[in-house]
Amino acid sequence: MPDKRDTEKIILGIDPGTNLMGYGVLRVASNKATMETMGVIDLRKYATPYLKLGRIFERVTGIIEAYLPDEMAIEAPFFGKNVQSMLKLGRAQGVAIAAAIHRDIPITEYAPLKIKMAITGNGQASKEQVADMLTRMLHIREEDMLPYMDATDGLAAAYCHFLQMDRPATTQPYHGWKDFIRKHPEKVKG
Amino acid sequence: MPDKRDTEKIILGIDPGTNLMGYGVLRVASNKATMETMGVIDLRKYATPYLKLGRIFERVTGIIEAYLPDEMAIEAPFFGKNVQSMLKLGRAQGVAIAAAIHRDIPITEYAPLKIKMAITGNGQASKEQVADMLTRMLHIREEDMLPYMDATDGLAAAYCHFLQMDRPATTQPYHGWKDFIRKHPEKVKG
Repeated sequence: MPDKRDTEKIILGIDPGTNLMGYGVLRVASNKATMETMGVIDLRKYATPYLKLGRIFERVTGIIEAYLPDEMAIEAPFFGKNVQSMLKLGRAQGVAIAAAIHRDIPITEYAPLKIKMAITGNGQASKEQVADMLTRMLHIREEDMLPYMDATDGLAAAYCHFLQMDRPATTQPYHGWKDFIRKHPEKVKG
Repeated sequence: MPDKRDTEKIILGIDPGTNLMGYGVLRVASNKATMETMGVIDLRKYATPYLKLGRIFERVTGIIEAYLPDEMAIEAPFFGKNVQSMLKLGRAQGVAIAAAIHRDIPITEYAPLKIKMAITGNGQASKEQVADMLTRMLHIREEDMLPYMDATDGLAAAYCHFLQMDRPATTQPYHGWKDFIRKHPEKVKG
């Protein structure tokens, strides 16, 4: 009997923000992904930045202990409105990354555009379009997804990572910028 | 015989940067601070951002395990050149903060200006002036300090925290912005 862990892979996807942190856990077996869990952590109720960061570290550590992911994917925007918000975002990312580093879990980052592109084929897709595609691909009931609309970015990061994994390109392969530009010349400015 | 730990306090000061991370450990007893150690971690030799962040987490955790600090002070700039550098800085800070959170160590942040102000009385002091004051106040030999010039910001954060601690204001008390502005009207623009 083969060791189940040899053919299965658990992917944790997170979207660490300063107000909300979305996460999703996928189980990949026989080239198919199924959702194990998804959720959102509301950080707005914590009064200080350290309580927020502490909560992120604690929750990411808790999810890692509960689901033992083999890999972590994070949604990582590289641009922001101003230096203040980027410092805060960097701290939130840093704390989540530390939780994974602490458990020796490899991390892959995906820009929001790349995640949307990989899942919907359109880098400018709306949150609703991404959620809709995820419900269909992962056979999630719409009413189960609805309370977690804010968590979809975490789940989407995990699903994007699944699509990028080394495997036969059966569904929604990502062909990169050149392909995107070829297909959507109207999206390219200048 | 009183418990030594009741009257002693260990302060870890760090300056988490993306290229260099300076740190210093102070032992405070009977209202006097002595240096336990200081050092600098050169992160430039690590090829990827994750190796850098992993090294920060590992080293801060190692220092915490070795010196069991009661409190951590970090130098935390709030302004930077651009959003990219602030995101990187935020990640470095976040990872160092996570190492402290993981051990339940309270963290206090100090802006660079405040640290320089507390130690030298001048928020615009040069790195050399801060180092010079630290060598005198902590009775460090100049030749011992010299190899760690890049680490002085970490030690300075620890010393600033020591000066801010609840104790009789005997040396270099920090009187805040109002006092600074009164003493240095020429530093205030506009």
